[in-house]
Amino acid sequence: MSVTGLPFDDFRTLIRDLPGHDVAALAAARSRNKQLTKPEGSLGRLEEIAMWLAAWSGRAPSVTRPLVAIFAGNHGVARHGITPYPVSVTQQMVENFAAGGAAINQICATYDLGLKIFDLALDYPTGDITCEAALSERDCAATMAFGMEAIAGGTDLLCIGEMGIGNTTIAAAINLALYGGEAEDWVGPGTGSHGELLERKIAAVKQAVAFHKDHLSDPLEVLRRLGGREIAAMAGAILAARVQKIPVLIDGYVATAAAAILKAANPAALDHCLIGHVSGEPGHLRAIEMLGKTPLLALGMRLGEGTGAALAAGIVKAAAACHSGMATFEQAGVSNKA
Amino acid sequence: MSVTGLPFDDFRTLIRDLPGHDVAALAAARSRNKQLTKPEGSLGRLEEIAMWLAAWSGRAPSVTRPLVAIFAGNHGVARHGITPYPVSVTQQMVENFAAGGAAINQICATYDLGLKIFDLALDYPTGDITCEAALSERDCAATMAFGMEAIAGGTDLLCIGEMGIGNTTIAAAINLALYGGEAEDWVGPGTGSHGELLERKIAAVKQAVAFHKDHLSDPLEVLRRLGGREIAAMAGAILAARVQKIPVLIDGYVATAAAAILKAANPAALDHCLIGHVSGEPGHLRAIEMLGKTPLLALGMRLGEGTGAALAAGIVKAAAACHSGMATFEQAGVSNKA
Repeated sequence: MSVTGLPFDDFRTLIRDLPGHDVAALAAARSRNKQLTKPEGSLGRLEEIAMWLAAWSGRAPSVTRPLVAIFAGNHGVARHGITPYPVSVTQQMVENFAAGGAAINQICATYDLGLKIFDLALDYPTGDITCEAALSERDCAATMAFGMEAIAGGTDLLCIGEMGIGNTTIAAAINLALYGGEAEDWVGPGTGSHGELLERKIAAVKQAVAFHKDHLSDPLEVLRRLGGREIAAMAGAILAARVQKIPVLIDGYVATAAAAILKAANPAALDHCLIGHVSGEPGHLRAIEMLGKTPLLALGMRLGEGTGAALAAGIVKAAAACHSGMATFEQAGVSNKA
Repeated sequence: MSVTGLPFDDFRTLIRDLPGHDVAALAAARSRNKQLTKPEGSLGRLEEIAMWLAAWSGRAPSVTRPLVAIFAGNHGVARHGITPYPVSVTQQMVENFAAGGAAINQICATYDLGLKIFDLALDYPTGDITCEAALSERDCAATMAFGMEAIAGGTDLLCIGEMGIGNTTIAAAINLALYGGEAEDWVGPGTGSHGELLERKIAAVKQAVAFHKDHLSDPLEVLRRLGGREIAAMAGAILAARVQKIPVLIDGYVATAAAAILKAANPAALDHCLIGHVSGEPGHLRAIEMLGKTPLLALGMRLGEGTGAALAAGIVKAAAACHSGMATFEQAGVSNKA
């Protein structure tokens, strides 16, 4: 990053000047797709996924080193009693990930996905967004840069997920700031906030957006004021993947809010991304529609941890395998249409 | 099978007296599910799937020997020029399956699913349903019994699929006979019948149901008159799986029609089955709703071959892995709700 200027300057340039898709790789994949032993289009979204892999990886569709990256953060806003779980659960779940005991570990084992956990200063929750910015510009930019390191070990399909008690409140505040509407449109039960907890969650989101209202026209300001460390890191990871030609699967409600920041800054910023799964969280489908996306799966999950993206990675692996492994009509001696 | 009586007699008894689910295994799975390190219900349909596996396998949820069984048949009705592909493609695709070149081979390799192909007298297409029964009672019962052998080698999750040029016409005729409505409600493009092909397909379905109209109140008569060998074999396989405590994933439009025969004969006959994927074939969603089911996936595929069921098997494997592999709150030292 630059040693002069404001911390966000390099990110503003990066987000503005994102590379486009690989025209030649896409054309080659389309040509091969026409020759495979199936009626054209009969693999539906699997064909779409294969073309997307080619376009954004710049190679023949292939998934050999898929990676799930989970970013964990803690949030000052959790002090408002908005969630049924204590904040200590974020750290406990990070340890559960490390020990292999969480849902995401089992899904990764099922589909042979790599898994990396990034815990982001869990002992130092971000500022309480109802009355202060979550992060300074310097801290936010540094966390985005840290998130960019998620892909440093190499991968050809990045699944973006998170863990953080209180972070569906954060995501709701970001969505309200970006898209407007009422707080009630964007606040849902998360891990299980009902009754008074849900009312306090709605109140916190309203208060936060009201407090920062004069500074929300700039998406990066939305990120640092209303976001959190895992949100900033996910945004950084999505950007780094774009530059490194790595297609991205985005997980649930919170990861989608991180992606939304980038889309608000550049309408083409998420063209290398698919949404893995539409969550049971009530606002998620609408948030996905605001990105112009259609989720791959709808299984009523609302866990985070990258679980929806990881399940979708199983589908993406199958799509790549069909494209690369199927015989052509000529190879198989199968008659094409009469 | 019995050596006296009509060939269908034993099947009528079998279908009437199907075993129910395992109450103890379901209770044990529900109890464990409550203790796993996630908010209850937050894995959505994955939790539902794990409970279903327990209920119908009678064991703790586990998928270690999943199997895709593809049944291939040819159809006299294809002589009416209802499909863009020649009938020889059924045999050619069976050879493509054997050589590993089809879509289903790649999906099986991706999720480590076994694959067995059963070709059913491909050189002897069934009778032309527009003017005769597809099968004699003896041939139909023998084919159902043959289908029951699909699980003889052992499996703990059976995916049911098919291949057969002309068989979406057959499936549409079955649906029209069972559910009524117009032929147009149930006839779709299949592998790519449009324009005149589609019109001939609709006409054939109308003619077939009109020809057999006095014999369609008995589901097994619907099967032998309007069905085909792969339909009869799939029905047999679904029955055998029920008796052997093997949960079943049903594939697309044609496999769903085979399942519908059983549901019409006994409303509880498909309780051990899930629908893997709702096809792009226009009538499929309605046919699934008639079974009271919700498909696991909706990826716009319309290929058959068991592809939708096999993709869903990937999800079912993940559901079983989460249930069996996750730590409990106590094991992981994670705080449960405050």
